[in-house]
Amino acid sequence: MTADALVIFTPSGKRGRFALGTPVLTAARQLGVDLDSVCGGRGICSKCQITPGYGEFAKHGVTVRPDALSEWNAVEDRYKRIRGLIEGRRLGCQAKVMGDVVIDVPPESQVHKQVVRKRVEAREIFMDPSVKLHFVEVAEPDMHDPSGDLERLSDALRAQWGIEEVTIDLPVLTMLQPILRKGEWKVTVALHQVHPTDAPRIMHLWPGLYEGSIYGVAVDLGSTTIAGHLCDLRSGLVVASSGLMNPQIRFGEDLMSRVSYSMMNPTGAAEMTAAVRAAMNTLFGQLCAEAGVDRGLIMDSVFVCNPVMHHLFLGIDPYELGQAPFALATSNALRLTARDLELELHPAARVYLLPCIAGHVGADAAAVALSEAPDKSPDLMLVVDVGTNAEILLGNTEKVLACSSPTGPAFEGAQISSGQRAAPGAIERVEIDPVTKEPRFKVIGSDLWSDEPGFDAATATTGITGICGSGIIEMVAEMRLAGLVDAAGLIGSPEQTGTDRIFLDGRTHSYLVHDGTAEGGPKITVTNRDIREIQMAKAALYSGARLLMDKFGVDRVDRIILAGAFGAHISPKHAMVLGMIPDAPLDRVSSAGNAAGTGARIALLNRGARAEIEATVRNIQKVETAIEPRFQEHFVNASAIPNAVEAFPELEKIVTLPDLSFNTAGSGGDGGRRRRRGA
Amino acid sequence: MTADALVIFTPSGKRGRFALGTPVLTAARQLGVDLDSVCGGRGICSKCQITPGYGEFAKHGVTVRPDALSEWNAVEDRYKRIRGLIEGRRLGCQAKVMGDVVIDVPPESQVHKQVVRKRVEAREIFMDPSVKLHFVEVAEPDMHDPSGDLERLSDALRAQWGIEEVTIDLPVLTMLQPILRKGEWKVTVALHQVHPTDAPRIMHLWPGLYEGSIYGVAVDLGSTTIAGHLCDLRSGLVVASSGLMNPQIRFGEDLMSRVSYSMMNPTGAAEMTAAVRAAMNTLFGQLCAEAGVDRGLIMDSVFVCNPVMHHLFLGIDPYELGQAPFALATSNALRLTARDLELELHPAARVYLLPCIAGHVGADAAAVALSEAPDKSPDLMLVVDVGTNAEILLGNTEKVLACSSPTGPAFEGAQISSGQRAAPGAIERVEIDPVTKEPRFKVIGSDLWSDEPGFDAATATTGITGICGSGIIEMVAEMRLAGLVDAAGLIGSPEQTGTDRIFLDGRTHSYLVHDGTAEGGPKITVTNRDIREIQMAKAALYSGARLLMDKFGVDRVDRIILAGAFGAHISPKHAMVLGMIPDAPLDRVSSAGNAAGTGARIALLNRGARAEIEATVRNIQKVETAIEPRFQEHFVNASAIPNAVEAFPELEKIVTLPDLSFNTAGSGGDGGRRRRRGA
Repeated sequence: MTADALVIFTPSGKRGRFALGTPVLTAARQLGVDLDSVCGGRGICSKCQITPGYGEFAKHGVTVRPDALSEWNAVEDRYKRIRGLIEGRRLGCQAKVMGDVVIDVPPESQVHKQVVRKRVEAREIFMDPSVKLHFVEVAEPDMHDPSGDLERLSDALRAQWGIEEVTIDLPVLTMLQPILRKGEWKVTVALHQVHPTDAPRIMHLWPGLYEGSIYGVAVDLGSTTIAGHLCDLRSGLVVASSGLMNPQIRFGEDLMSRVSYSMMNPTGAAEMTAAVRAAMNTLFGQLCAEAGVDRGLIMDSVFVCNPVMHHLFLGIDPYELGQAPFALATSNALRLTARDLELELHPAARVYLLPCIAGHVGADAAAVALSEAPDKSPDLMLVVDVGTNAEILLGNTEKVLACSSPTGPAFEGAQISSGQRAAPGAIERVEIDPVTKEPRFKVIGSDLWSDEPGFDAATATTGITGICGSGIIEMVAEMRLAGLVDAAGLIGSPEQTGTDRIFLDGRTHSYLVHDGTAEGGPKITVTNRDIREIQMAKAALYSGARLLMDKFGVDRVDRIILAGAFGAHISPKHAMVLGMIPDAPLDRVSSAGNAAGTGARIALLNRGARAEIEATVRNIQKVETAIEPRFQEHFVNASAIPNAVEAFPELEKIVTLPDLSFNTAGSGGDGGRRRRRGA
Repeated sequence: MTADALVIFTPSGKRGRFALGTPVLTAARQLGVDLDSVCGGRGICSKCQITPGYGEFAKHGVTVRPDALSEWNAVEDRYKRIRGLIEGRRLGCQAKVMGDVVIDVPPESQVHKQVVRKRVEAREIFMDPSVKLHFVEVAEPDMHDPSGDLERLSDALRAQWGIEEVTIDLPVLTMLQPILRKGEWKVTVALHQVHPTDAPRIMHLWPGLYEGSIYGVAVDLGSTTIAGHLCDLRSGLVVASSGLMNPQIRFGEDLMSRVSYSMMNPTGAAEMTAAVRAAMNTLFGQLCAEAGVDRGLIMDSVFVCNPVMHHLFLGIDPYELGQAPFALATSNALRLTARDLELELHPAARVYLLPCIAGHVGADAAAVALSEAPDKSPDLMLVVDVGTNAEILLGNTEKVLACSSPTGPAFEGAQISSGQRAAPGAIERVEIDPVTKEPRFKVIGSDLWSDEPGFDAATATTGITGICGSGIIEMVAEMRLAGLVDAAGLIGSPEQTGTDRIFLDGRTHSYLVHDGTAEGGPKITVTNRDIREIQMAKAALYSGARLLMDKFGVDRVDRIILAGAFGAHISPKHAMVLGMIPDAPLDRVSSAGNAAGTGARIALLNRGARAEIEATVRNIQKVETAIEPRFQEHFVNASAIPNAVEAFPELEKIVTLPDLSFNTAGSGGDGGRRRRRGA
């Protein structure tokens, strides 16, 4: 019997006894410890760095002697000299076990490393992308035992990585022979595999050891905006985020007008498909330029979108989605190639579309469910994704309901007089002094408030260009809190409000937020029509949430998560002042940013999440707002801005809503839709 | 217990007892009897026609009473009235078992029907193509239980056909919704599946019951000629056969000159790839025009070719095939799509390339192995596929050896002064009277010999345009038998041969076969250079066969099969006179026509044959002629045309070879290469 030693890995705690002389990497693999290696233990990739611990480890009951690992060797020496190695680190493929030892695997040496997320309550993302790199040494051809280069590469992947039955994309096959010879029979392989039962597919080859990274893109394709994250598929980091307006807006602001466009025009759907695919390619260009990444290195992509966007992106006429019974062509997740969709990525790049939930509840809602995971929450959770269509999820571990509500584009800054997409220069935070009625604000791209020193300099390059979606929510809520807008949504006159920032603007009044004309910028105002748009939008949102609560048989929820398709986080307080969401304790309302985009990113970085969300979606109960009479009922009752009424007791604890009405005549041009109270 | 009855199916002999009232189709399915049905038993497709037998069946021990099946019903009546039904036939889905019965399944009602082949010794082909049609009724969408159209179609395939987990091609998905609605939720699905573990893939949809057929194309891509068969994937019949010259000839006559072209020209390989793909599309156009078939109905395709053609067709530079160790990019079978190769077939058409055997022994040799199956022969079988490269297989159930020999294009009619591809107007059979030295011949497109009445009229439209590959073999052999050519390959003078059809043509003599100049046609002659080309070609072929015999350790084979890439069958007798093949009893030498093309057709019509040939090829031992000194040795000794020497005792039994030499000077310009004897 050969002598052996105890090896304990941290942080996993996995342990086992190994014969003296066993390389640490080998021990890690045998124990299933997550220790990275691209070169397969040849001492050239340095991905398997480990930190041995020496001395007493009372917790583990071992004492590690200074000679517990083999001596620092020439390979490590060379690596440290040329590339550098943190003090105390060893290469796991070189250091051999010579006695009991405790070995720490630093996060950057873990394959399935955890991706850091900003929100503490957010679900963890562990790296397990569908495209991974493997370095192999391939046998040279032998005329006396003829076999193809691909077959010898496959043999090498089997022998050196345990990967069986690989297949190859034709464009890679055409490059195989020169690359193998250029790399002198050493090659780095990018392998694509989603499910363990799929045949692994060779997507790309580099001669020798490729030390760069590969990338993936996660895209939230909204009706109004398209937002993308470029992610490093090795580190999991977002290396660039960018967005643009959906060019389909020229065919119709909202989904139904785009469906109508396709019904009215024989080539309408094809035009919209071409437009959105072209926009995708523009977005990829922006992301690559921002990160300095070659778009040919983008090997995987995940898309989330509502059903109409889903169909138009795929080239399916959305005709059926415009009429009952709102049948989708397919609701299942789709696996395609970039080529199928004319996307300019790596020639063999893969495309994954999350499943749709129903005809009006799309892959974006599925992505929100993946990111926020109501199905894993013991608390009853309401998740609201604010966009041109609001995706609403209500549920807990017991069951999850979902619906979609047509809010229109106001929350994304469209159809708002000074509205704009979230981009540098857009107002995103607002406060209005309840006494002076003067506003202060922040714009995207600066951390300063507008009344702080240095603000002008900080915004000199971007200017102050408009108000983004989350800014307009704060703006209207602040106007309500400052007594500039009444519960019915009417802006008071200069006399009624006591500020000359309000001026008569046609038949109603407007509020001047910022006059940039002296610097050649725009005059930014909020018109009464803007308030109306926001009222309609928030009523739709609120009604959807209430409908799900009715279906669930509850009149309160434990937690609310506000997600927005793009840009800054929505302020929970202002959302409640506006009455966008049901009453709830403010500390149980949080803002999740672009949850759909995050869901897309999770599916990009962790291939197991794809099967998970596909299973989750099958269990979500769909509620169709269009056929629910109670939705209309809620909607009619929800257009007013809360007036500290009985329905919002939690809201009353945090703000004082002025009880006022500016509708002196009782017959203003804006009436009809709103709930009349007080007056 | 319900009453039951004995049901016996012929020709399978399968039998079982079934409850009275069981439809015949159901009984057939339960017994695994091969009875077709596209509509799944709805009485609309008529594919399940059966013929009940009545009376005494001593062989089966049953008496079938006149009321053994349920009465002729309204569905059958309607079908017979509208479409017609052969007397005595019933629809298997309508006729129910009411007593003991013997039921014959006619060939056209069998799914796995046998395809009739002309050669009696040829292996049977049973229909089991990778694309099949299924008619289904799909549930309509329900707003209260939302699901995608594709998911309901999948459910229908599962419930009505037991087909699980279907996937769909994106172009079909984009057409799914209008087709389902046009067919009023009834649809015919073309499903693609090769191996039972593959997910079945929806390739095409037709509204309602599609009563037409679908097609596949089997292509033998040779260096000189490209030959294709268009096959009906339901009946297995060849509905059109066509061919054309490989346009790559302009880049080089033989394989090595094409490899050189790609080495010398940076875009050389790409030009040759584009040329061969364009030619494929021309070929498909010819086949479709001949059969009157829409090329969009061609859903599957199988290609066989030598390694250089294989690589160029795939877009792989054949550089490595031009030098030792002759490494293939891949030797495995490939599954691709028509789109990958820019082939103008159905947009989702599949492409299958048979595996290659080695760097010089390609998928065409694999196809010959599939068609002629030496690995299943107890006799030692030599299979020779004559083309620009000859593929040679030698083996039996014990083992199979393979090699390739560079014969050049002479056997395909190229580099022959009056040579042409096998097409109407080409001389394919020849006889030369040994006394008068006058030729008679047949041309492709006519069954008459040239000295028979009506020949001129029969060939008026095609003319007499040249000599095809099998024609040139007969021509040279007949010239040898008639004493016009000596064993060294020299054409005698008019004086030596006693015919004024021979004339001085430069430094050597030529033989006039046919002078068509009076009718505006060509003068067809055989020059001494033509004889030399054929000698070189046949020497290469013979040497390859001898090399394999050496490797196998035998000096005789039991059987010889001659296969030719295109055109008429090669005459075994003339091939032996020429010394193309080793000596063997003439009745053990047969001609297989285009065996490579037949192999492609087998793989097209029977998907199981693909796994079979992939396994077979893995076991074939490859012999590389380029590194075998014995190949050169055989070659040097093989250029002479046999002179009834000791090496050909079997040949002497059937022909008399004149013992003569025309080389009076012993210093002719043609010497050097030939074996000198007699003189």
